[in-house]
Amino acid sequence: MNLLETITYPADLRQLPLESLPQLCDELRTFLIHELADNPGHFASSLGTVELTVALHYVFDTPNDRIVWDVGHQAYCHKILTGRRARFHTNRKLGGLKPFPSPEESEYDTCTCGHASNSISIALGMAVATRQQGDSHHVVAVIGDGSMTGGLAFEGLNNVSSTPNDMLIILNDNDMSIDRSVGGMGEYLHKLHTSSFYNGLRYKASKVLYRWHILNDDRKGRVLRFNNAIKSLLTNQRNMFEGLNIRYFGPEDGHNVVELVRTLQRIKDLKGPKMLHLHTIKGKGFEPAERNATLWHAPGRFDPETGERLKSTTSGPQPLRYQDVFGETILELARRNPRIVGVTPAMPSGCSLSIMMNEMPERTFDVGIAEGHAVTFSAGLAREGMLPFCNIYSSFSQRAYDNIIHDVAISGLDMVLCLDRAGLVGEDGATHHGAFDLAFLRPIPNLTIASPMDEAELRRLMYTAQLPHKGPFVIRYPRGRGILSDWRCPLEEVPVGRGRRLRDGQGATAVLSLGPIGNEAAEAIRECAAEDVAHYDMRFLKPLDEQIMQEVSSRYRRIITIEDGVTTGGLGSAVLEWLSDHQCQIEVVRMGLPDRFVEHGTPAELYHLVGIDKEAILRVLTHHSSSSHP
Amino acid sequence: MNLLETITYPADLRQLPLESLPQLCDELRTFLIHELADNPGHFASSLGTVELTVALHYVFDTPNDRIVWDVGHQAYCHKILTGRRARFHTNRKLGGLKPFPSPEESEYDTCTCGHASNSISIALGMAVATRQQGDSHHVVAVIGDGSMTGGLAFEGLNNVSSTPNDMLIILNDNDMSIDRSVGGMGEYLHKLHTSSFYNGLRYKASKVLYRWHILNDDRKGRVLRFNNAIKSLLTNQRNMFEGLNIRYFGPEDGHNVVELVRTLQRIKDLKGPKMLHLHTIKGKGFEPAERNATLWHAPGRFDPETGERLKSTTSGPQPLRYQDVFGETILELARRNPRIVGVTPAMPSGCSLSIMMNEMPERTFDVGIAEGHAVTFSAGLAREGMLPFCNIYSSFSQRAYDNIIHDVAISGLDMVLCLDRAGLVGEDGATHHGAFDLAFLRPIPNLTIASPMDEAELRRLMYTAQLPHKGPFVIRYPRGRGILSDWRCPLEEVPVGRGRRLRDGQGATAVLSLGPIGNEAAEAIRECAAEDVAHYDMRFLKPLDEQIMQEVSSRYRRIITIEDGVTTGGLGSAVLEWLSDHQCQIEVVRMGLPDRFVEHGTPAELYHLVGIDKEAILRVLTHHSSSSHP
Repeated sequence: MNLLETITYPADLRQLPLESLPQLCDELRTFLIHELADNPGHFASSLGTVELTVALHYVFDTPNDRIVWDVGHQAYCHKILTGRRARFHTNRKLGGLKPFPSPEESEYDTCTCGHASNSISIALGMAVATRQQGDSHHVVAVIGDGSMTGGLAFEGLNNVSSTPNDMLIILNDNDMSIDRSVGGMGEYLHKLHTSSFYNGLRYKASKVLYRWHILNDDRKGRVLRFNNAIKSLLTNQRNMFEGLNIRYFGPEDGHNVVELVRTLQRIKDLKGPKMLHLHTIKGKGFEPAERNATLWHAPGRFDPETGERLKSTTSGPQPLRYQDVFGETILELARRNPRIVGVTPAMPSGCSLSIMMNEMPERTFDVGIAEGHAVTFSAGLAREGMLPFCNIYSSFSQRAYDNIIHDVAISGLDMVLCLDRAGLVGEDGATHHGAFDLAFLRPIPNLTIASPMDEAELRRLMYTAQLPHKGPFVIRYPRGRGILSDWRCPLEEVPVGRGRRLRDGQGATAVLSLGPIGNEAAEAIRECAAEDVAHYDMRFLKPLDEQIMQEVSSRYRRIITIEDGVTTGGLGSAVLEWLSDHQCQIEVVRMGLPDRFVEHGTPAELYHLVGIDKEAILRVLTHHSSSSHP
Repeated sequence: MNLLETITYPADLRQLPLESLPQLCDELRTFLIHELADNPGHFASSLGTVELTVALHYVFDTPNDRIVWDVGHQAYCHKILTGRRARFHTNRKLGGLKPFPSPEESEYDTCTCGHASNSISIALGMAVATRQQGDSHHVVAVIGDGSMTGGLAFEGLNNVSSTPNDMLIILNDNDMSIDRSVGGMGEYLHKLHTSSFYNGLRYKASKVLYRWHILNDDRKGRVLRFNNAIKSLLTNQRNMFEGLNIRYFGPEDGHNVVELVRTLQRIKDLKGPKMLHLHTIKGKGFEPAERNATLWHAPGRFDPETGERLKSTTSGPQPLRYQDVFGETILELARRNPRIVGVTPAMPSGCSLSIMMNEMPERTFDVGIAEGHAVTFSAGLAREGMLPFCNIYSSFSQRAYDNIIHDVAISGLDMVLCLDRAGLVGEDGATHHGAFDLAFLRPIPNLTIASPMDEAELRRLMYTAQLPHKGPFVIRYPRGRGILSDWRCPLEEVPVGRGRRLRDGQGATAVLSLGPIGNEAAEAIRECAAEDVAHYDMRFLKPLDEQIMQEVSSRYRRIITIEDGVTTGGLGSAVLEWLSDHQCQIEVVRMGLPDRFVEHGTPAELYHLVGIDKEAILRVLTHHSSSSHP
């Protein structure tokens, strides 16, 4: 560890001679492996961008030049080289470095990049503004091949070619997104790779041109254009990027830092939009990760020497994760109901649809990072009588909002939308919390919206949703483990729009909870000495249980609503609306997520911080009981 | 009018000999022109698809075979040929035919198609389901070149190539969406067109092949593949669709119905995904529309003989449309504030950004049908210190929901989001009403959300929004004319989060309204004999005016909220939440759009139907006053 320690900011990096960069990359990779072994995070992606990150900060004058990272997974090296090495051990921890680049954290971070595929659009805006304002800084977007399957990336690309700008797009092609690159784009890029005859020739040709001093700084533009022309001729195809008027360079080896620096120096000042296509290896330099990049996307803690992944320290058998309950249950249901198919936008492992995929590959569809398409494609399947379970992470479902309204809800199609990672997800922070789903789905007519309090409820809701004529059925559930040791309960129908009375109360207060936060509420109620509190698990946000509302509004003087979503528009608001519509004027206390973006930390820390964990609920119960006048 | 009258359903059409189809097309075109001259609708698009529609229903066995229209603008002929000719004069009218194809209306309509770019995804779902279920019907998606700029279309295309299916995509390329095709895709398609050498040769070659009996039904597959190979060779490029493993045919003349039938017959049974690229002319066969397709996209009433567009029958000067007030005002602001730029996704004329575009082309950006990109691109502009006004139709903004949250709100960027066509838009119906925006935007932290009651307020809000450090600022306003004869008021700042007391009331009731529906409320209040009602124009949904809420909750016993959005989560809910948070238990009546999809009709008819026009408000005021006990 010699060079890395001399670098605090990219300006330090730019003092190094070119030939020392491979050593720096080795050090950086070692640093990254050791840090992440101890403090888990997104691993394989960042190992794949070590050389690229070094080369970018070496060639470009950051932060004056702008680097726009698409999805911050790949940007750990960027953090380490931009003033955050010493604090990197706090990455993703409460109060520590943010999980993804963020302009609020560093001037080297140019935009929010938690959701895939936005880099080209953002960078185009920046590049256009740069021109308009007479500035001369460079703008570089770095986008993975997985992100390229997102429609937003294509919308961006389509506009890059029609709006005057000088931006550089770096396509970081590692042949997969989180699971694997899906669709024609992936195959297309693969074809570009494997045109090996051309590549060999091109590398040889440019070396010769350099040796003969034909290629130099003055002529580089002209010669590169010539290079492109050769390529078109040789491969007998104009590639689609050139078809879109974007000058295309590559594919090149993204792990040869010296060549990468030279290439970037050559093309950085060329006018007009351009794309450099790099081939990188996810997990590069750490053998176990190279072998199984999906497993090592976010591996948790591991031994940096052996690659052994360390088990959680909790002893004894643990409840299953909600994800796995979903995966096991959809398989169980699909075995019985031949109409069921599974759809996921690039998250088969993350949402455990992979369990069904292994047994029924022909009935599961990974559509790539394309949430809008996932929903509309599911609508098409449903139109022809199939019953799709479309599984999307809650925060990513924001990308399918119109698809849910326009392609599903208007016709009331029979299909199931499973929103995984609802509520606070923890370390992935503000961009990834499933905070808004309840509030943004509730206004949509025809939807049924449910959230299970535990794994058994998840199974019952999934069973119910696939029965005939249930219409569009949303089931949202959190990241992580459930609470039951025996989750495989019988599959029974739940009446739609009916919640459960969990506990009768003799006091003035009834708690109405939705989803797994109800377990915190139940504990708080058990411990509440001040009052005998009633507890209802609403189970459905929509339709709201009329019977429970009747019962509660006639028997209790105070309602406390608890949900793991924002209180602007969610369960609490639905309860207020019902009470207002029924001329019931009783006190309501709404507990839920605040009207601000919540940062990162463990879920427990965050629920504590926003005030809807057991202690906070107990506090509210006690306070309100003591302040009431029986 | 001879042939057309014999056709009620496509089965009748399929009885005709091939050579009579040109005559049928002429009759259909004449019918369409005369119907639309009298009953306005989307004109130019449907004139462009006369031959295509006839050919599709002639070749395919509809409704058993599925035709998926992308955006129903182009589907009027489809309606006329599928049992709805006699009722076509009721098109877009209250209780009449729906503005866009809808499975609820006809078995020939396969999906909801009000929003662009969804056809490929839907059709892929249908085609995959067809295969999985062992059915053999064909699935055809018809998509315009404008819709091809939408990211969803690309996501669909990307998956078409990776999922086994036999669907046919027809690219109806008329070189424009509503205004004009934008971006690389447009240029790309243009290049495919103009490779005239190849086209000439191809047509000649196929004629020769037919004459020599080399091309016949048995061999058609093989020869067509051969044709594609020739093309690749001659144009020296594999086009991007073939790059995506989609077999490509064309471009062909979309107005030669006989050739079109032959082509479709040749390719319909080929296995695997395929695309037929047609060149059509928007407004084909009606000379004024051919000359100016944008003007004739939805021209209103006109003289079918002369092409003279008929003025509205109302005499005297009328208030300007909100759209034009937006257009004039942004130009006025942009002249003074060099940071202002305008962004629109394919609606420069519709939203009147064209007014600024004419004077400042370099400061306005039409990004094509790409709402997500429009917002994220604007975020990029804002990052570099520009002040974008991004104008999107309210219902289309549902497509940019994640972009608003992830790329704008999290960082609290200074930019303005103008949502045009908010509230009920009228004849375009369920897919186009801006019913949900208030409810889905309110949960997002950091947003300011405003709606002007009249044109002067729109100007003041626009002026305010562009002042420094206002953060993300949403202004939503309706389609159509305002109420002021003199709209060009001075540009003055409005305090953010402050509404206006329009009328003091001595009774028990205060009305809180948001947006132009407030004018209906004001009239009702003036006419209300039962009580002296107070009226406040809230102006801001978020932040809610604390002072007004304090005043109203202390002075009145009853609050009536009125908004032109759904009452599940909008202004009424915000008021309920505030009252609950401040322990105020007073009666609230929420008036707004219902929790169901509202169909089409004139805005006046619809507001009457859903019960928030003047009469309905007056009824509520009177009822509640008489039922209250002073």
